[in-house]
Amino acid sequence: MLTEVQEQAPRQMAPGTIAATKVEYYQIPLAEVLSDARHGDHTHFELLVFRIRCSDGLEGVGYTYTGGRGGRAIYSLLKDDIQPLLEGRDSSEIAAIWEDIQSHLHYVGRGGLLSFAVSAVDIALWDLRCKRLNLPLWKVAGGAGNTTKCYAGGIDLNFSESKLLDNISGYLSRGFNAVKIKVGKEDYREDVARVEAVRQLIGDDVTFMVDANYSMTIEQAVRFGRAVDHCAITWFEEPTIPDDYTGYGRIADAINIPLAMGENLHTVHEFTYAIAQAKLGFLQPDASNIGGVTGWLKVAELAYAYNLPVCSHGMHELHVSLMASQPHAGYLEVHSFPIDEYTTRPIVLENGRAQASNEPGTGVTFDETLLRPHLVMHT
Amino acid sequence: MLTEVQEQAPRQMAPGTIAATKVEYYQIPLAEVLSDARHGDHTHFELLVFRIRCSDGLEGVGYTYTGGRGGRAIYSLLKDDIQPLLEGRDSSEIAAIWEDIQSHLHYVGRGGLLSFAVSAVDIALWDLRCKRLNLPLWKVAGGAGNTTKCYAGGIDLNFSESKLLDNISGYLSRGFNAVKIKVGKEDYREDVARVEAVRQLIGDDVTFMVDANYSMTIEQAVRFGRAVDHCAITWFEEPTIPDDYTGYGRIADAINIPLAMGENLHTVHEFTYAIAQAKLGFLQPDASNIGGVTGWLKVAELAYAYNLPVCSHGMHELHVSLMASQPHAGYLEVHSFPIDEYTTRPIVLENGRAQASNEPGTGVTFDETLLRPHLVMHT
Ligand SMILES: [Mg+2]
Ligand SMILES: [Mg+2]
Repeated sequence: MLTEVQEQAPRQMAPGTIAATKVEYYQIPLAEVLSDARHGDHTHFELLVFRIRCSDGLEGVGYTYTGGRGGRAIYSLLKDDIQPLLEGRDSSEIAAIWEDIQSHLHYVGRGGLLSFAVSAVDIALWDLRCKRLNLPLWKVAGGAGNTTKCYAGGIDLNFSESKLLDNISGYLSRGFNAVKIKVGKEDYREDVARVEAVRQLIGDDVTFMVDANYSMTIEQAVRFGRAVDHCAITWFEEPTIPDDYTGYGRIADAINIPLAMGENLHTVHEFTYAIAQAKLGFLQPDASNIGGVTGWLKVAELAYAYNLPVCSHGMHELHVSLMASQPHAGYLEVHSFPIDEYTTRPIVLENGRAQASNEPGTGVTFDETLLRPHLVMHT
Repeated sequence: MLTEVQEQAPRQMAPGTIAATKVEYYQIPLAEVLSDARHGDHTHFELLVFRIRCSDGLEGVGYTYTGGRGGRAIYSLLKDDIQPLLEGRDSSEIAAIWEDIQSHLHYVGRGGLLSFAVSAVDIALWDLRCKRLNLPLWKVAGGAGNTTKCYAGGIDLNFSESKLLDNISGYLSRGFNAVKIKVGKEDYREDVARVEAVRQLIGDDVTFMVDANYSMTIEQAVRFGRAVDHCAITWFEEPTIPDDYTGYGRIADAINIPLAMGENLHTVHEFTYAIAQAKLGFLQPDASNIGGVTGWLKVAELAYAYNLPVCSHGMHELHVSLMASQPHAGYLEVHSFPIDEYTTRPIVLENGRAQASNEPGTGVTFDETLLRPHLVMHT
């Protein structure tokens, strides 16, 4: 009898059912033009925000970003191809949704632009997962701790040497004890001079990385890497094109500085090849373009299995929690695109370590008043 | 004096200068639902047409296509990010334009969706190049000949066995002497039975390939490959995920059927890894998603250097000329998406060989009357 009543009761929609989603596209100007050896000048960045509302009213917020190009195509993928897949799905089945989107769009996907779109959706789903658990992301993603080593990542190739040094001094006075500069000048001797000047400014105890944004040939990378051997460089990031895994291996064999890459690898498979062949010292997945928290954690587990520190690229207001969550975290990049300044909690440093939010969710809550002036379109 | 006059003469715009470009997005219904093991049901395909008009009035037409998803994002890349780069450029500098687009959008590119957009632009530039030379593509792209071996590629996994056989009979009566079917049924024994039935129908002399659309694990692929060893299969296409190059190598080592792939590799670098590790028997670049004629020819040269036949995927009305142009061509796929039926010259077979157009240009001229009803949006 009881069984019968249960069977006849109307089946309720699970509280985590996705009731509605929303896509927003922003163009956010930078305070000044920022340049590197590959992208040229950045004048603004693009921010795509993806919101999921569940049947019980709970909301999750995800996002991705670009350096200023391709964002409208990401918007189209989210609006035209992904939104229709989501309504009615159980928001707690993150792996199923992640695989379904990848599979649905595989012919135009398997990395590239699709990984950005998947990331925005996935982060919103993780925000919901954390909120339902009433736990912060650093606990849900792993729970190793709630702080992480970090560094200030300059986009400063166009800065004069004196402005470069002023900028680095600014990082130190904000409390950073690790800094990164861009390299890739026309004449590599200028790069060497800048590296030496920065090392002299920061002294022996500040951690120091360089990033070529894959502007160099293998020969150029080796020549530069050897020329700054005396400057105690913690890593040499993206010396050459990220596609050339064995080329990285040749550079690694020829110089004494560990190599780092990851911001341009958009599938976990690309990371397996990089690990196997590129002889990297550090992996740098970016949750905004590797498939969100799900993709980032897959790479973090690979890094763990292969005894490599996992690091991050960009989007530090989110990565701070992911990095803190992992026992084998390297350095969080505090990026020059200030997405965090459009949230209610810009990056927090204590004794040079970045502090993860303890609020339930990803810890990234956009300040709508600050964002609204930059909204270009939305669904 | 003469020099002075020349210097004072107004600098004329070069006749090949790009004066205007146009993007068109079509959704074209298929005559019936077509299915494979990965994509599920196809009900239509998306066609993106890119038109370039030069300052002297000459027009070039390029295009790309998808299985029905992601096309609006390609449209956005073409319209929002690529069109603004092109006006005023010299249309004859194809390599420069190709690299500039790749570089401009590299952060969201390096394969994936961007490769489709680049393809549409590149094909239009090659159409212009051929028209200016007053030569057909098969001559400009290489000139090895104007015909190619070819096969009919069925998308037929959802066909009953009797419908499958009827479909194959139809190919034979149209003049094909090579056919391909889909495999990847839930129970591999059903695949084996269908392969055996097709081989029995076509006899010993018809070339026969199978395509799993990367639906199998390595173990499943090996089991199936061994089970059809007696059926004289020319190639086993995409047994497992295209990302797993070394997995392909393991399958190749375990079975007697050569492997083929390429339709899901979107950069020349991905092909280098596939060549080095996947132990392929045939390379299958697709000019609609490897960066157009430029990208396809890069892979064709790799294939030549590594002593592999170059083949094609999809878009046969264009690939017929590229395949004919190469001395090491394998088999042209005559695909089940009938783009050619919307052109003025559907595929032409003679003695089982596909015939390239001898008209100046790519040989692909769309029939506007047939296309127009399917136009969804344009710039
Ligand atoms: Mg970098
Ligand atoms: Mg195929």
